Amino acid sequence: MSSPQPPSIEFWFDLSSIYSYLSVMRIEDAALRAGVAVAWRPFMLGPIFDALGWDAPPFVVQKEKGAYVWQDMQRQCRRYGLPWRQPTVFPRRAVLPARIAVLGEGEPWQPAWCREIMRLNYGEDRDVDTPEVATEILDRLGLPARAILDAAVSDENRQRLRAATQTARERGVFGAPTFFVGKDMYWGNDRLDDALEAAASKA
Amino acid sequence: MSSPQPPSIEFWFDLSSIYSYLSVMRIEDAALRAGVAVAWRPFMLGPIFDALGWDAPPFVVQKEKGAYVWQDMQRQCRRYGLPWRQPTVFPRRAVLPARIAVLGEGEPWQPAWCREIMRLNYGEDRDVDTPEVATEILDRLGLPARAILDAAVSDENRQRLRAATQTARERGVFGAPTFFVGKDMYWGNDRLDDALEAAASKA
Repeated sequence: MSSPQPPSIEFWFDLSSIYSYLSVMRIEDAALRAGVAVAWRPFMLGPIFDALGWDAPPFVVQKEKGAYVWQDMQRQCRRYGLPWRQPTVFPRRAVLPARIAVLGEGEPWQPAWCREIMRLNYGEDRDVDTPEVATEILDRLGLPARAILDAAVSDENRQRLRAATQTARERGVFGAPTFFVGKDMYWGNDRLDDALEAAASKA
Repeated sequence: MSSPQPPSIEFWFDLSSIYSYLSVMRIEDAALRAGVAVAWRPFMLGPIFDALGWDAPPFVVQKEKGAYVWQDMQRQCRRYGLPWRQPTVFPRRAVLPARIAVLGEGEPWQPAWCREIMRLNYGEDRDVDTPEVATEILDRLGLPARAILDAAVSDENRQRLRAATQTARERGVFGAPTFFVGKDMYWGNDRLDDALEAAASKA
């Protein structure tokens, strides 16, 4: 008889995705309350949108929906007590942040790194795709910035991010954030609590 | 000094729209609990999708999202205690039901009519766009089926539905259900409770 698995969910997110911001900021507390472990799975939504035949995020392609999203995000951030400043650039490139996030899989600093990037992008309207910003954050987290940056842009790590994106695609991910409880997919920050509840009840 | 307005929201929905099903079924109880009056505003999403340059609902155009929606709806219906049978035809035409719904604006039977259509469409997988089904429902509701059907297909009433759709478009509606609290838009069944809360707090 195998020992019981602790309840867990997979959290697939993109550091430039707007609704991923909400989940990145709140998932750790919510999961803790639910007694569920979280596997953070950074990936790139851009290549998936490309494969779906979209030139850009739906919020950019669909003007009416795009206009709405800014209102919705302002209200959602108020609801969750998160900082919000409407980004002057959207979508904002976050490739280096994604590479560092992938490098941090399983490391205790991975969630903190992701929260810092999101806070700068959506709370302070800052460009987050530069080595300078990465260094600033890594320094603040007490991490070896130079070594992490070098490892993040290595061929091996670039390939790791591509592989994560490919896995997301194969599993039918079409947006972010997306949660998996076993094989069951939950799409969108609005489903985070349902996903945690499902994970907890399966344990 | 004018007398205080009771809190209210506008509820824009399409009787063939899948997520409108959830809101049509639950809005009356939820609004009652929140102390908010609901103005039901049926319209047709099809012409709006046409105007946005889409050939079909996003769930049909985007295969991956479409596959997900059936899982999500099954879970959402379980959550809200609603019947669910995956429709064999999607989207299912509901033009006559929409005409009757528009005719019923302000009538006490309008919400009940909409719930019956939705229950047959998404709970029992039935074609709802026929005079026979309309007659069956209207009879059950104790209403004069012949007179209502005649009025529903009159030029004047067809025009009323077109005007409602045009109004929705001018107000920036891009999906259904959509709620308005004054000028503030809330999109999707997931925002119904937020919209009711906002309406109640404005009173």
